[in-house]
Amino acid sequence: MSEVGDNFETLGSSAKDQLRAFVERIERLEEEQDALAADKREVYAEAKGNGFDTKALRKLIKIRKMDDNKRREEEMILDTYLSALGMLLLD
Amino acid sequence: MSEVGDNFETLGSSAKDQLRAFVERIERLEEEQDALAADKREVYAEAKGNGFDTKALRKLIKIRKMDDNKRREEEMILDTYLSALGMLLLD
Amino acid sequence: MSEVGDNFETLGSSAKDQLRAFVERIERLEEEQDALAADKREVYAEAKGNGFDTKALRKLIKIRKMDDNKRREEEMILDTYLSALGMLLLD
Amino acid sequence: MSEVGDNFETLGSSAKDQLRAFVERIERLEEEQDALAADKREVYAEAKGNGFDTKALRKLIKIRKMDDNKRREEEMILDTYLSALGMLLLD
Repeated sequence: MSEVGDNFETLGSSAKDQLRAFVERIERLEEEQDALAADKREVYAEAKGNGFDTKALRKLIKIRKMDDNKRREEEMILDTYLSALGMLLLD
Repeated sequence: MSEVGDNFETLGSSAKDQLRAFVERIERLEEEQDALAADKREVYAEAKGNGFDTKALRKLIKIRKMDDNKRREEEMILDTYLSALGMLLLD
Repeated sequence: MSEVGDNFETLGSSAKDQLRAFVERIERLEEEQDALAADKREVYAEAKGNGFDTKALRKLIKIRKMDDNKRREEEMILDTYLSALGMLLLD
Repeated sequence: MSEVGDNFETLGSSAKDQLRAFVERIERLEEEQDALAADKREVYAEAKGNGFDTKALRKLIKIRKMDDNKRREEEMILDTYLSALGMLLLD
């Protein structure tokens, strides 16, 4: 596959082609990822422009991915600890 | 737009629809991002399976995004510092 | 301060000493940071061993850094959005 | 240890004290971490003020943590890939 040159090896031509193909496939995927990230920033900017709070929006979307029971349990434990330290907002 | 209820407000119906629309647009984009991330992991796994070093592959792709002059300058400064501390691999 | 060598420059001796001093100061700080991070992991492990939920503990500590009014406002907005999408746990 | 209240439990007093102790220990460690992070930012700012390139300085410190043989091998593989795509700076 390769012979040792200066302080690097020289890949054979088929290995070179394979490497280039992997690189280009990854670069195309990363271009698509960058485009989606830009689209998402646009949606958040639009939401903000319409008066929505983007920090709350992100939390909302994160919560929507959670299983209800797990969420209920997590909130119960956190409220237990908040109450123990007198930090519940109702306190 | 909203009246103050218990310890949260109640959005009017149009604001509710708007919020849901933003949430669903963001969720669709995040699904596409997850799919692309999975595709990228697959390509790296395939490259690894073909004997390529994925850490070097990631660095290669990062370097390909750099302007040559900037890259040359950064490498020159780093080599200057490595040489100053006797850490050049040739040393 | 330095003459251009192969593809790097050679720092003068005072610049070399200065560079080494900065490097060693940073490395000492990073050693201390690593030690503190290890201590923190130990405290969390101890808390876990005593039946406490470390995820909730982290959130509790994050919340303790927040200003009460800001926290109240953030929770109110999030609950408003959760309620708008029928996601309040009481719903 | 605790009875179920509204939608959270009430910790017994010893559990409350234990929780508070863990929280305060973690907060003290985080204060020290913040102080060290501030010190490190200061050293980098001082180095920058003395004409050193902080990006290269960070890389230098990262490289100093690497085992020489591992570093030599990683650089050899990366140079092999760079050469394969005609991206060696000497090319």
